Amino acid sequence: MEAITFVLFGATGDLAKRKIYPALYNLFIDQKLPESFSVFGLGRRELSDPDFQANVEKSLRMFSRRKVIDQENLQKFMGAFRYRVLDVGHKEDYKTLLQEIEQQEQEIQTKSNRMFYLSVGPQFFGTIAANIQESGLGRASGWKRLVIEKPFGHDLASARELNESLSIAFTEEEIFRIDHYLGKPMVQKLEVLQNNNPVFKALWDNRYIANIQITSNETVGVEERAGYYDQAGAVRDMFQNHMLQLLMMLTTHSPNNTTNDDVRKKKKIVMNSLEQLHKEDVKSHVVRGQYGAGAIDGNPVVGYTSEPNIPEDSSNDTFIAAKLKIDDYFWRGVPFYIRTGKRMKEKSTRIVIEFKEPLKKSGGTNEENKKPNLLVFEISPDERISLHLNTRDPLNKEKIKPMYIDFHESQANLPEAYENLIGDALHGDSTFFAHWEEVELSWQWVQPILEAYNENLVPLHIYAAGTNGPSASDELLEQDGYHWWFDQEEEHRTEIIEEDLSLATKSPVLQ
Amino acid sequence: MEAITFVLFGATGDLAKRKIYPALYNLFIDQKLPESFSVFGLGRRELSDPDFQANVEKSLRMFSRRKVIDQENLQKFMGAFRYRVLDVGHKEDYKTLLQEIEQQEQEIQTKSNRMFYLSVGPQFFGTIAANIQESGLGRASGWKRLVIEKPFGHDLASARELNESLSIAFTEEEIFRIDHYLGKPMVQKLEVLQNNNPVFKALWDNRYIANIQITSNETVGVEERAGYYDQAGAVRDMFQNHMLQLLMMLTTHSPNNTTNDDVRKKKKIVMNSLEQLHKEDVKSHVVRGQYGAGAIDGNPVVGYTSEPNIPEDSSNDTFIAAKLKIDDYFWRGVPFYIRTGKRMKEKSTRIVIEFKEPLKKSGGTNEENKKPNLLVFEISPDERISLHLNTRDPLNKEKIKPMYIDFHESQANLPEAYENLIGDALHGDSTFFAHWEEVELSWQWVQPILEAYNENLVPLHIYAAGTNGPSASDELLEQDGYHWWFDQEEEHRTEIIEEDLSLATKSPVLQ
Repeated sequence: MEAITFVLFGATGDLAKRKIYPALYNLFIDQKLPESFSVFGLGRRELSDPDFQANVEKSLRMFSRRKVIDQENLQKFMGAFRYRVLDVGHKEDYKTLLQEIEQQEQEIQTKSNRMFYLSVGPQFFGTIAANIQESGLGRASGWKRLVIEKPFGHDLASARELNESLSIAFTEEEIFRIDHYLGKPMVQKLEVLQNNNPVFKALWDNRYIANIQITSNETVGVEERAGYYDQAGAVRDMFQNHMLQLLMMLTTHSPNNTTNDDVRKKKKIVMNSLEQLHKEDVKSHVVRGQYGAGAIDGNPVVGYTSEPNIPEDSSNDTFIAAKLKIDDYFWRGVPFYIRTGKRMKEKSTRIVIEFKEPLKKSGGTNEENKKPNLLVFEISPDERISLHLNTRDPLNKEKIKPMYIDFHESQANLPEAYENLIGDALHGDSTFFAHWEEVELSWQWVQPILEAYNENLVPLHIYAAGTNGPSASDELLEQDGYHWWFDQEEEHRTEIIEEDLSLATKSPVLQ
Repeated sequence: MEAITFVLFGATGDLAKRKIYPALYNLFIDQKLPESFSVFGLGRRELSDPDFQANVEKSLRMFSRRKVIDQENLQKFMGAFRYRVLDVGHKEDYKTLLQEIEQQEQEIQTKSNRMFYLSVGPQFFGTIAANIQESGLGRASGWKRLVIEKPFGHDLASARELNESLSIAFTEEEIFRIDHYLGKPMVQKLEVLQNNNPVFKALWDNRYIANIQITSNETVGVEERAGYYDQAGAVRDMFQNHMLQLLMMLTTHSPNNTTNDDVRKKKKIVMNSLEQLHKEDVKSHVVRGQYGAGAIDGNPVVGYTSEPNIPEDSSNDTFIAAKLKIDDYFWRGVPFYIRTGKRMKEKSTRIVIEFKEPLKKSGGTNEENKKPNLLVFEISPDERISLHLNTRDPLNKEKIKPMYIDFHESQANLPEAYENLIGDALHGDSTFFAHWEEVELSWQWVQPILEAYNENLVPLHIYAAGTNGPSASDELLEQDGYHWWFDQEEEHRTEIIEEDLSLATKSPVLQ
């Protein structure tokens, strides 16, 4: 790998400490950084290089998935870090920075490859991009890349504006928009699992699939982000980006020989095929919710409007459930139910694929215990793939009983989302990033929802904290004859699996 | 349940001790026997009722899957057993027996339901049936049933003759032919799994399946059955019955609402669609083998012709591998490879379904680690269903790696084959029995093989004991571009699974 200069705006921020430094460290340990790699941390306040390095080390000790033990490696890694004061609006600071970077690049006598990582508020993106361009920082003899974090706008118009401002300095190919859901190992597997397994490929369409449910629930409330969150709501904070990205990753039909560009194209095709809602239809397809007082794990918690820094009369959404349809030959007739909420009953991100029973006579006297086949991708907190089948109860042959087959992978040794994503960006691989067209199409799809919310065309349902959201969310599925899987305790299957596994470990596989 | 009289021919035999008494006992414990249930054990030698009961008790203590602990229950169970001397050719003995049975039936004043279980050599079947008829034993006021064990003939003609002789006294509906493979829990699940799971139904044909492999290997040699086995060979002992029954159970396409009769009909349809071999074609479709000297688990063992009571020049087959085709719309083009042998490398009965890769461009640079998808039913010694998939290696994103999802059920608490089958026969449920038409069609299919063997049109391959059989068996698949799965050590996956399971047990499923 060629030498890289990593220029980090917001080097003293929370994201840098929790995610970026640990990710770089683990990439370094895995020898996925170039031999010549230097980091320029930028921030407003004064900080000496040694103090900056001490902060980075502290962040590694707190947040790295690997324990920091090898002192020699740590010193080598730390040697790459320097800190510079930079006021994002101060053009001179960029010039000074450029001189320093050029000096260093000359020392190692290679082409200059520069990655600009903007771990700052989106209000600064435009200014920074313009100054990178103007100062000459953007004229690298090798490549330059820009990594940015959400939010990419707060509606369609602002997203376009933001993108416009970035495009002064960077082409689309140079921009890597992080959607950290795309960095999660299970999400990264979705495309491979679909496209490299004939048994999944065979089942992956409206002939066999009844509906698909994508859930991302949190138990936490608004936490310290009141100012941002009360403006964004669940629709902007989760739905427009993470949830629609999950939908895209799940529904592409790629050939086996998939390139980054294939994935990008296929995702765009999916978004283009999403049936657009009109403002007037939002009410019948989208459930808007806000948590009221309730209890999480038995502990009482306040409602959203009683949270610190949230206006008492806020009508902001902390929950959204929506029914979507993809109008193409694969997915026509398959409803996609997507929901995400705060202060829900359990923390869980998962995708449930419910299969159809193709025949009318579906089981006769055995019907009672028969359940639809399900393929479940649990994305977090644990990763797990399971297939739910019906089998014969060996103790009562008249009966059908459910059966689960599972695959579970430990996360202890897996790279974290940011590690995957930063590693990919350093290699110029944009497969798991949000491309502009996807972002634009997502905003376009969401825009009528924003307008309908704004004009109060959609009721705001208050749900008790610690529940599965408003009952309107259940009704959204009930009217199609379905229900949200795993909301009810009795559908959980902890015990059954643990029993099976304990038996399995006792027995040899093949003798 | 109505009262039943269970008349057991061969009550002092090995099968009765090892299988029938333990099966009855466990059915009794599970309350699956009628309140009024009496057993008349018949044999040639004199034995008092108490001695007979003591023998039965001994067999339970040695062979019952459940420990015999409750003395009161045991006494109640034992009370049903009496022993009578009977010479199968002696008509008077049947009359005496009838009197005793009638006397007992009158005591409990119910309709007489009589089950005749022939745990004796097939050479006695005809005589016994005739005498049951002649003596009046067969004129029960309720129902009468006949349970018999293999072998049902040694070729097509003798099977027909045998059946003819039984039909003097019993209708086809009254005859329950035990094929104990059909009693194995996993085999009993096959039909339910296929027909109650849309994801399997969708995949269950030539669009998605490349080939199906059915293996039943033993590590033991001819053991104490030299006299019988040297006349039967693998083709009669295993292939004509158990292996073809497995094939039938796997390939029926039933509606969801399956009755016994549906299963029977569908099995017959499969057998009728099997492409018939001609004597001249046997050589190219069937591999005939006989074990030579070798080693099992590192211990040297003699070859077949050096076994006690086997002629030195015996050309009897201890191994058969065959390629079969079902010429219907579901299975056309899917080869079925079936093999069974003694003195093989490992003891294992399993079915492997190998799926097709539907697209030409199947993986590109990722090809190297990509394996076909497999669905594996392990029938014995352990029961296990597993699905073999390809996933993304989370540590090396360019790579595909294999992944297994498994379901394993402990056999400790499952009914044994004989328990299932005797229980079904008592209830008159013939789903998991070999019906005459199946038996006849199986013999019909096998007949050209018998003739080709007899006329020495097929070479006898000697294979070393402790191997996977003759290399001709591998070539049978190689010429179609396939190989027998799991013959090679590196395809075993004990370690991987144990690793996965150990991780899985540590983590909660849903939080």
